[in-house]
Amino acid sequence: MSPSRGKFITVEGGEGAGKSSNLAFMRDLLEQSGRQVVFTREPGGTALGEDIRELLLGHKHTGMAGDTELLLIFAARAEHLARIILPALNDGKWVLCDRFTDASYAYQGGGRGIDMGRIQALESWVQQGLRPDLTLLLDLPVETGLERAGQRSEPDRFESEQQAFFERVRQVYIDIAEREPERVSMVDASRPLPEVQQQIRGVMERFLDRVQNHE
Amino acid sequence: MSPSRGKFITVEGGEGAGKSSNLAFMRDLLEQSGRQVVFTREPGGTALGEDIRELLLGHKHTGMAGDTELLLIFAARAEHLARIILPALNDGKWVLCDRFTDASYAYQGGGRGIDMGRIQALESWVQQGLRPDLTLLLDLPVETGLERAGQRSEPDRFESEQQAFFERVRQVYIDIAEREPERVSMVDASRPLPEVQQQIRGVMERFLDRVQNHE
Repeated sequence: MSPSRGKFITVEGGEGAGKSSNLAFMRDLLEQSGRQVVFTREPGGTALGEDIRELLLGHKHTGMAGDTELLLIFAARAEHLARIILPALNDGKWVLCDRFTDASYAYQGGGRGIDMGRIQALESWVQQGLRPDLTLLLDLPVETGLERAGQRSEPDRFESEQQAFFERVRQVYIDIAEREPERVSMVDASRPLPEVQQQIRGVMERFLDRVQNHE
Repeated sequence: MSPSRGKFITVEGGEGAGKSSNLAFMRDLLEQSGRQVVFTREPGGTALGEDIRELLLGHKHTGMAGDTELLLIFAARAEHLARIILPALNDGKWVLCDRFTDASYAYQGGGRGIDMGRIQALESWVQQGLRPDLTLLLDLPVETGLERAGQRSEPDRFESEQQAFFERVRQVYIDIAEREPERVSMVDASRPLPEVQQQIRGVMERFLDRVQNHE
């Protein structure tokens, strides 16, 4: 008998939302529950995807057209799906992914003002119905996030955008969470880390229970 | 008064069809007729497009998924349109382009077997109705073309494909020419160069007459 299909979990959030440490925390929780976890990220996730990521995030091509940016992101995503995500899921593994298509709606749609219908057309073209089973949205006020992110490294091309850009990004994420409460769980990432992890633990436990009841 | 919009001319053809020398010949003809000509190529045409071209044609990412390849090609095309083709046309210049979307139907559709409807969806997404005003198809038997191309340099990733691949490419090109005789003029590129150029001169003169009568 082939293994039951794995689950696809994505984590979204603006700058300084603590994605890295919270992703590591989620990975531990999943492994403790006995799941085999494939840990990956967007844009990137494959050798080709990382080269595309470099085109997107580097400072070499700062003036690229919005359509170009979106097509490159979905090109990396198509490769990521074909090489990493779908094979893992079909093999019964769980996939934990740092950002996915919600980020395209937030950054390219909300941030850059690309028409949402055009993003949706590419989503359908590339994913052909595949959606995450669970998305964790780490939400916090833009100012708090930028302060936290500013304490780190040199800003990349996206991080150099203005605050108004990130306000639009945040609003799209919140809209998605309100529109799809079944899939998207929003966590208040402005709280101290132990409290954030307590919230995440709750979301994960409910999700694992739900999955177990269907297995 | 703003200048009247320029014309968009593309040249298509399989391996060894003599695209380079015939493009130079066409450029001369257009300039002799008093047109300002922007000469460009796909995939590529912009700095970012050339980087994408390198991902597509290099041997680093040989196993990329068909969807990924197609999205990268249209990403380069979106940038090419936004930065080079549309500004030139709007400025009254004529654009002469080495390959365009017909090549996606021929190589990715015919060659790689990607669904033509999926290619058409991306064409509509990116071009939003823009099509070449004239396409010159340099047609010749696959074997003749591969023999000619083999006398040149090391084959790139596409040129390394099998003969059956190129037969499918050629057939799609012929199908397009038969379906759209108004736009696509097919030239027998297996003839000696002076005869090919005589055919091209005839096509160009008819096109220039037609344009002049509408200006």
